[in-house]
Amino acid sequence: MPSEFRTTRSVEFSDTDMAGIVHFSRFFVFMEAAEHAFLRSLGTSVADTFEGRSVGWPRVGASCDYMNPARFEDMLDVHLKVIRKGTRSMTYGIEFRRGDVMIARGNLSTVFCECAPGQPFRAIPIPDSVADQIQVSPEVEGDDDAEG
Amino acid sequence: MPSEFRTTRSVEFSDTDMAGIVHFSRFFVFMEAAEHAFLRSLGTSVADTFEGRSVGWPRVGASCDYMNPARFEDMLDVHLKVIRKGTRSMTYGIEFRRGDVMIARGNLSTVFCECAPGQPFRAIPIPDSVADQIQVSPEVEGDDDAEG
Amino acid sequence: MPSEFRTTRSVEFSDTDMAGIVHFSRFFVFMEAAEHAFLRSLGTSVADTFEGRSVGWPRVGASCDYMNPARFEDMLDVHLKVIRKGTRSMTYGIEFRRGDVMIARGNLSTVFCECAPGQPFRAIPIPDSVADQIQVSPEVEGDDDAEG
Amino acid sequence: MPSEFRTTRSVEFSDTDMAGIVHFSRFFVFMEAAEHAFLRSLGTSVADTFEGRSVGWPRVGASCDYMNPARFEDMLDVHLKVIRKGTRSMTYGIEFRRGDVMIARGNLSTVFCECAPGQPFRAIPIPDSVADQIQVSPEVEGDDDAEG
Repeated sequence: MPSEFRTTRSVEFSDTDMAGIVHFSRFFVFMEAAEHAFLRSLGTSVADTFEGRSVGWPRVGASCDYMNPARFEDMLDVHLKVIRKGTRSMTYGIEFRRGDVMIARGNLSTVFCECAPGQPFRAIPIPDSVADQIQVSPEVEGDDDAEG
Repeated sequence: MPSEFRTTRSVEFSDTDMAGIVHFSRFFVFMEAAEHAFLRSLGTSVADTFEGRSVGWPRVGASCDYMNPARFEDMLDVHLKVIRKGTRSMTYGIEFRRGDVMIARGNLSTVFCECAPGQPFRAIPIPDSVADQIQVSPEVEGDDDAEG
Repeated sequence: MPSEFRTTRSVEFSDTDMAGIVHFSRFFVFMEAAEHAFLRSLGTSVADTFEGRSVGWPRVGASCDYMNPARFEDMLDVHLKVIRKGTRSMTYGIEFRRGDVMIARGNLSTVFCECAPGQPFRAIPIPDSVADQIQVSPEVEGDDDAEG
Repeated sequence: MPSEFRTTRSVEFSDTDMAGIVHFSRFFVFMEAAEHAFLRSLGTSVADTFEGRSVGWPRVGASCDYMNPARFEDMLDVHLKVIRKGTRSMTYGIEFRRGDVMIARGNLSTVFCECAPGQPFRAIPIPDSVADQIQVSPEVEGDDDAEG
């Protein structure tokens, strides 16, 4: 039962800024792309329908710490771990490395929601078909279902 | 009756790339922002409803020529002109200058469409309430209504 | 002596994603733009020279919590506060509101560095000419100079 | 001798806008990524050194026509052709297809330049080691070296 996912990310020219390094905001895009690839690997998608309703995973929190700069044409190893699994939410920890060098490490917290057009997003339980496939990474301490 | 619109754009750090200049793709975002400000100045919006239908202005073409680089914290003068007005389409020419220096000059061609969820976009006539407010810039040669 | 800064941000079409809301990564760009406007208000810039050296403020950490979605053409009030001031680093807290509605709240941690071409960034003390102008927001608890 | 290059591009969530489709400005990023992959396939890079000088390929023109919208998680086939090869410049034509559906077709014109820090870009001849590897696509009409 998957608790982690690995992918790679090649740094593009448009990811860089005038400091010659990847702009810090791009790591959030990279994190999201890893999350979506993880969801696809489970046979679901970040933009899906469930029992005829449009559902999605709006973000409620995101953070990133930057250890070393990444540069144009770097190939980054991306390592996503499930660090919290709630009834209606999921938190991922994502690490970016270039070889042995830690580049950045971030978290992404998402809530499973019904996203009806013209309506506020409404948190709903993650369907069993998805939830049953995911487990919290054994490396992560503590409970995995404290929240409702 | 407006045929042109002027605004400014301040170059942000995230607009730059590792060459130390504004990334060429950003000028398309700047053009679009000017178009939207122009539409707002007419009391309409790029994302609106008309007679209960969701309508918008999908792009069918865009181009830009780059004369001189723009840099972080440059304040650009943006000058939009209507260069073609069709029954269902509009083409804008947009110039970017920093003082007397021409930075870039582009075109943006858009089609007025009904954008119903889950349906292909469908070109429809521009409502009179909008079309009657817009005229082709007198500086532009030629006809303004050749297309249907 | 400034400990906070206020600006506004208008949501552009290109800030949105297919969920119809501002993409979460864009708030980091909005935070950075507020930080840079704050630095400009002090007569300095994020990309400057000091005693003949290229200096800058690389990010070491960034986070954001998302309370309510922001949408196209929303005008957001942006409120930046200095929440930590070190000898070589600065942390800002930034809140985004639309009227009375809290949209998002984030932190941005930066380190003052010499950024010589082809060299690793090197943390150096913030020049007095800048540091003397900034104080930690009185609303923030605790020490303001624990780190070196 | 290469005159074309094929790659693919997966549409990410952050490529989309509130109209539910890929934002038109993103195709310019996609074009650039294809150009850079082409240059890498020739053993060079868009950001390189040549005889000890920093060189690059600033853009002088870019255009795109949009035939059909692309959406989240679409896999696009990207087909780049060399449509003009000058002594100091290169123009690429790039097509985006999803299966049999033409999505967009654009051009990218670049000039080979010395990019010394703090100096204006200066057009210089493309090194033989690169130029000798590239030929104009046989499908393209006309001369390939009219400009200096």
